[in-house]
Amino acid sequence: MTSYSSLGKSPPRIDAVDKVIGKALFSADIVLPNMLHGRMLRSPFPHARIKRLDTSRARALEGVMAVVTSADIPGVTGLREVPDPELPCMAREKVIFEGQPVAAIAAINQYVAEEALDLIEVEYEELPWVIDVIEAMRPDAPIIHPSLRAQNLAGQDDKPSNIFWYMKYLKGDLDKGFGEADIVMENTFRTQTVHQGHIEPRASVVDIGADGKLTVWTDNQSIFKVREFVAGYLALPLRRVRVMPVEVGGGFGGKLHQQLSPVAGLLALKTGRPVKMVMTREEVFKATRPSPATAITVKLGVTREGLITAADVKMVYDFGASTGLPGLDAIHHGIRLLDPYRIPNYRIEGYDVVTNKAPSGPYRGPAAAQAAFAIESQVDVVTRELGMDPIEFRLKNGVVKGDLSVHGSPFGEIGLTETLERMARHLEGKKKLGAKNRGRGVACGLWSTMSLGSAAHLNVNEDGSTTLVIGATDISGTRTAFAQMVAEELGIGLDEVTVVAADTEVAPFGSVSVGSMTTRSTGTAVMRACLDLKEQLIRRAALRMKVDAGDLEFSGGGVRMRKNPETAMSFAELTRENFALPGAGPLMASGRSDPFGKPTPAFVVLAVDVEVDKETGKVIVLSCAAAQDTGLAVNPTMIEGQIQGAVAQGIGWALTEGYAFENGVMKNPTFLDYRMPTALDVPYIDTILVEHGSDAPPYGIRGVGEPPMVPTLAAIANAVHGATGVRLLELPMTPEAVLEKIRGSGDPPPDKEKR
Amino acid sequence: MTSYSSLGKSPPRIDAVDKVIGKALFSADIVLPNMLHGRMLRSPFPHARIKRLDTSRARALEGVMAVVTSADIPGVTGLREVPDPELPCMAREKVIFEGQPVAAIAAINQYVAEEALDLIEVEYEELPWVIDVIEAMRPDAPIIHPSLRAQNLAGQDDKPSNIFWYMKYLKGDLDKGFGEADIVMENTFRTQTVHQGHIEPRASVVDIGADGKLTVWTDNQSIFKVREFVAGYLALPLRRVRVMPVEVGGGFGGKLHQQLSPVAGLLALKTGRPVKMVMTREEVFKATRPSPATAITVKLGVTREGLITAADVKMVYDFGASTGLPGLDAIHHGIRLLDPYRIPNYRIEGYDVVTNKAPSGPYRGPAAAQAAFAIESQVDVVTRELGMDPIEFRLKNGVVKGDLSVHGSPFGEIGLTETLERMARHLEGKKKLGAKNRGRGVACGLWSTMSLGSAAHLNVNEDGSTTLVIGATDISGTRTAFAQMVAEELGIGLDEVTVVAADTEVAPFGSVSVGSMTTRSTGTAVMRACLDLKEQLIRRAALRMKVDAGDLEFSGGGVRMRKNPETAMSFAELTRENFALPGAGPLMASGRSDPFGKPTPAFVVLAVDVEVDKETGKVIVLSCAAAQDTGLAVNPTMIEGQIQGAVAQGIGWALTEGYAFENGVMKNPTFLDYRMPTALDVPYIDTILVEHGSDAPPYGIRGVGEPPMVPTLAAIANAVHGATGVRLLELPMTPEAVLEKIRGSGDPPPDKEKR
Repeated sequence: MTSYSSLGKSPPRIDAVDKVIGKALFSADIVLPNMLHGRMLRSPFPHARIKRLDTSRARALEGVMAVVTSADIPGVTGLREVPDPELPCMAREKVIFEGQPVAAIAAINQYVAEEALDLIEVEYEELPWVIDVIEAMRPDAPIIHPSLRAQNLAGQDDKPSNIFWYMKYLKGDLDKGFGEADIVMENTFRTQTVHQGHIEPRASVVDIGADGKLTVWTDNQSIFKVREFVAGYLALPLRRVRVMPVEVGGGFGGKLHQQLSPVAGLLALKTGRPVKMVMTREEVFKATRPSPATAITVKLGVTREGLITAADVKMVYDFGASTGLPGLDAIHHGIRLLDPYRIPNYRIEGYDVVTNKAPSGPYRGPAAAQAAFAIESQVDVVTRELGMDPIEFRLKNGVVKGDLSVHGSPFGEIGLTETLERMARHLEGKKKLGAKNRGRGVACGLWSTMSLGSAAHLNVNEDGSTTLVIGATDISGTRTAFAQMVAEELGIGLDEVTVVAADTEVAPFGSVSVGSMTTRSTGTAVMRACLDLKEQLIRRAALRMKVDAGDLEFSGGGVRMRKNPETAMSFAELTRENFALPGAGPLMASGRSDPFGKPTPAFVVLAVDVEVDKETGKVIVLSCAAAQDTGLAVNPTMIEGQIQGAVAQGIGWALTEGYAFENGVMKNPTFLDYRMPTALDVPYIDTILVEHGSDAPPYGIRGVGEPPMVPTLAAIANAVHGATGVRLLELPMTPEAVLEKIRGSGDPPPDKEKR
Repeated sequence: MTSYSSLGKSPPRIDAVDKVIGKALFSADIVLPNMLHGRMLRSPFPHARIKRLDTSRARALEGVMAVVTSADIPGVTGLREVPDPELPCMAREKVIFEGQPVAAIAAINQYVAEEALDLIEVEYEELPWVIDVIEAMRPDAPIIHPSLRAQNLAGQDDKPSNIFWYMKYLKGDLDKGFGEADIVMENTFRTQTVHQGHIEPRASVVDIGADGKLTVWTDNQSIFKVREFVAGYLALPLRRVRVMPVEVGGGFGGKLHQQLSPVAGLLALKTGRPVKMVMTREEVFKATRPSPATAITVKLGVTREGLITAADVKMVYDFGASTGLPGLDAIHHGIRLLDPYRIPNYRIEGYDVVTNKAPSGPYRGPAAAQAAFAIESQVDVVTRELGMDPIEFRLKNGVVKGDLSVHGSPFGEIGLTETLERMARHLEGKKKLGAKNRGRGVACGLWSTMSLGSAAHLNVNEDGSTTLVIGATDISGTRTAFAQMVAEELGIGLDEVTVVAADTEVAPFGSVSVGSMTTRSTGTAVMRACLDLKEQLIRRAALRMKVDAGDLEFSGGGVRMRKNPETAMSFAELTRENFALPGAGPLMASGRSDPFGKPTPAFVVLAVDVEVDKETGKVIVLSCAAAQDTGLAVNPTMIEGQIQGAVAQGIGWALTEGYAFENGVMKNPTFLDYRMPTALDVPYIDTILVEHGSDAPPYGIRGVGEPPMVPTLAAIANAVHGATGVRLLELPMTPEAVLEKIRGSGDPPPDKEKR
């Protein structure tokens, strides 16, 4: 492996101190002169027709500066994509989920705004609703979007339906495959709706200039997407919207979508004054975009030798009231969870379905953890039936370079085998589990990182220090990683590099900070900006040293003669005197990444030890270890933090979290009742970084934030089986659910069909 | 001349509405949480030794957070130039001008800060002082900087002196030249200390980050110079200082220097809290950097035919307590005022001298208006003696392309002749002056615009609109000019271009906004960024259209086939689909200008009609006309505003303004007593734009802001002579001074020496 001086080290995050001492600026910290406070009136029903909406009494209240409804939204521009064309910023004619915005108010303070909410008169006619994804697929289910037709689903595409997307992948001969199997087993798995649980509630402040330009501060995962959404919803050209950088208090996919900013922008346009809107935690739960519930059926056929011969998978994803964010079809991501295995014959069917729940959105490896829960649980079912070691089974069936992915492209450099082997070695060194009510579960998964077109500017200061300007929102420490890249490339100290995530008017374009891709997308641009700078320095050094540029190279922190390395100029020398060199001019460089970078799959294997209290059903996670192929680990400590954070979130998803509904209404929209794990629920999580370099720039890195979430749900379920002998098919595995399963069934579980 | 679509038009300034309605952000508008307020204790004496300085009582006052003196300044870094090494931020050992900072206080509010100022105990020992520049040159004058030695001055360079710079230019044979003359006349002219009179007082707000980084908002003429000064004074690396862009309420050269920001930064470092400092008008007058007073002797020899045969000029500039900002030697600029004339034999001597007055600084054409007052007055003296028309005289002696400048380089494209001819035509069309007490004065002058290295980034948005990012402070409407350049180059509408003057961390380097050079320095970078973008678009269009890039050209707002212009892609088409093109990536471009661009002299001729009330001596300016060679006039209305503003300032300098001293102390530090012209004192000023293109990029423009100031003082003095027959040798030409001259002398004035 190449030897690096700055990459692979773990300097502290450059944003750390500001965040710890409270200096970091979040969007809700913004206070502007003459600022108004906005609030939204939201639907109390999961499904209802709006018969009358009268805002006149609210408008008349002293201190209320504007009241807007969907009638005030000018309609989207044709120019750019806006998410969910079926789902306007505020409800039109009917509400389709509890918490849907119906109207919004701007007032001189939040108290007046709250008071005015009560003065808006809405007469609803309640409609039948459906929140269960399987019920929603029935022909007699209440129809949520009357204009919606199922796409790709033969026989369904001419009548209204709650199914809005169907997809089928076929390979080989399914009947032949199952015919070759010695064991065929099938189960249906269900996962619940869960929230990203970011600590910072959604907030937006929108200022308005004399020229009508809107300036937006909001928690986001892409300042450029915010600009696109706000401009799109309000039918403004992009140049009328400027989005400022702020720190983001947790995103995990949940902050890509923007509900507040277009409405705050509309209120600013109506009043000519800045408007601030901050959601309550209840609003965050009920009206932002949680992760889809699912119902996934997996049927596997295996030989006695442990080779998979066939798989039949049916995936149903619950998109709530959303008909999908662009590019976010759950099935497309879900099917990749068959990618770890070489399977000669398969059928995968996927359904995206709407229900009267909050619109779904991405959450740390969108759609993948749910699919992995079903597939990796079922792999565990057959593995235990075979009596095989779970890692041995996966090594036997696991894909290697050259195998085809489910999407049909051959894998390049992948590290599944090494990841499994490293985990096997790790487990060999562990103590035996001991007590009878303890069990170990293993699961694997992957997230394949894309790279989208992003750019970077590098400005060199008069003293030879450098400033990197990027447009990518930093949700995970990417600024620190980019500083390491610049220091590495230029052979300078990390403290000589300033990284600025700038605003949409000043920054070069940065693509979305989702899909674990920022360090790749923008990182490639950063690396190329450095290469550009080094070429320039070589050309200038050649002039200065009166030699041919071809005889020079950049190495060891400066430009030197290839054949006589003693003849050299350091980076500092070159840049400091550059400003005064005739013919030189300010030093700056740019780089960009390609719009469609090659996907780099990052495999991860998780092993979890649990203890189950058989009296109460409570599952205690004793220890976890994650072995993950990170490619080059740019900053190992930050990556370990990503792994530990993701697994912690997975523990919550597996054991305690979930939306509880009563009559279509969420009953637990607080952190007290929606039970996320605390420090007491999460053990120390061991991390094993497998640095199998990818075959894509920069530096063969892979996305690291999402992969470790993927196998966690299944690994814990598999561990619970190990501890109890019962198979939990549904999440969360609450004490009640575990206890019921233990009491309702003996060992072995009744979930197999042997031939 | 090339035909342009956006250049040469006069769209409104893009900053106009925000400034008119009060939305524009100036540095004093910045309010930060926990902000402290700083005040400075200043010297009441022009020259005194500090015997004791005790800040303990001030420190003890409740609400005072820090008190600093020069002892707290760590000393400058060797890295970068800091202005005036002899003149620290705060006085050391002795004070050398009234208003010099002695100590500074940061307190919880300005009232506590004011109160604490009174508690600082300073014991002074008054020293002899000198504020007259001629007296300061005497061997027995009080020495202000004991370490100072006169440079270049033979016999003077070994002992302390108030002369810090001497310069001599010689050409031909002076005796021979005067010998060939029919008339030789000599006068000594004096000008007073005047202030730039910017409406916005100096202000600085400095925030401090958790990492000790200082963020500075201050009125400035270069954010990068502010960074350099603050870092230099406080011995910090550049990356520890970030300077934010703010609007500037008038600069005129006076805001290049930074007195507050280093001290506010020091107070922020001491307290860990943001600090705001705002000067009173009195502080602005007494302690910022007014324009030098001068004493200039001009001796001219001419033949009866009106040809200049010789010139002997001795220039003395009063730098106050300053030993000069880097690159700001007054003589260097002053001598150029002989440039309009072809003079075969000359001697020019220059002296820069220190006095116990506020340190001098640049003011709209630094040093030039003073020199022009002397030279153009004396040219008028000999012209009237010859009985020649002033324009005819200047046409006869005026330089044309190929003639040598005083600095010895041949003139390239210059427009002096056209400018004189256009003024002659203008005056032909004017009514006769009529009344006996009216007179007309003509003078010419020039300012030669440099170009320093600057850079520009151009980002293209997803919808094809563009954002230009620059680092040059906009003090005169340059953002609008740059928007016109981008619109011109890309063939798009002006409203498709957003221009952002960004901060020092985000912006590419921009050089100082002085010397009328910003539209050249940064404009060249802007033009080149557009050329870069067009080359990229051609390459991408070639891929898209499957043709050779060489067969394509950018014209008419898009890329088209050279041989078949119908086959084309518009800028919008190319950029909108660019983001989705494989292999493309975000579109952006960069450009830079050379560090030492060729100087482009801009000549200007001014004609002024005045009426003098012979009972009171009051001079009323009846009308003015300025003919100026602007090269291509990028935005004619903005240029006309520059000319009218400069001439108005010149009227004040000529007639009413000036520092009045009593015992070395300024007696009129208010706008009421320091009499700047009001709308009632300034007539409509006719402008004649002579667009003689220069031979330097971009577009053959010339600097426009400074030239019109240059001849104004002389033109008014010449007009006063025309109205009264008396020659005012000293400014300002107050009613008292004019009356005294009229009463004390007949006509012709006693200022000639005929042979």
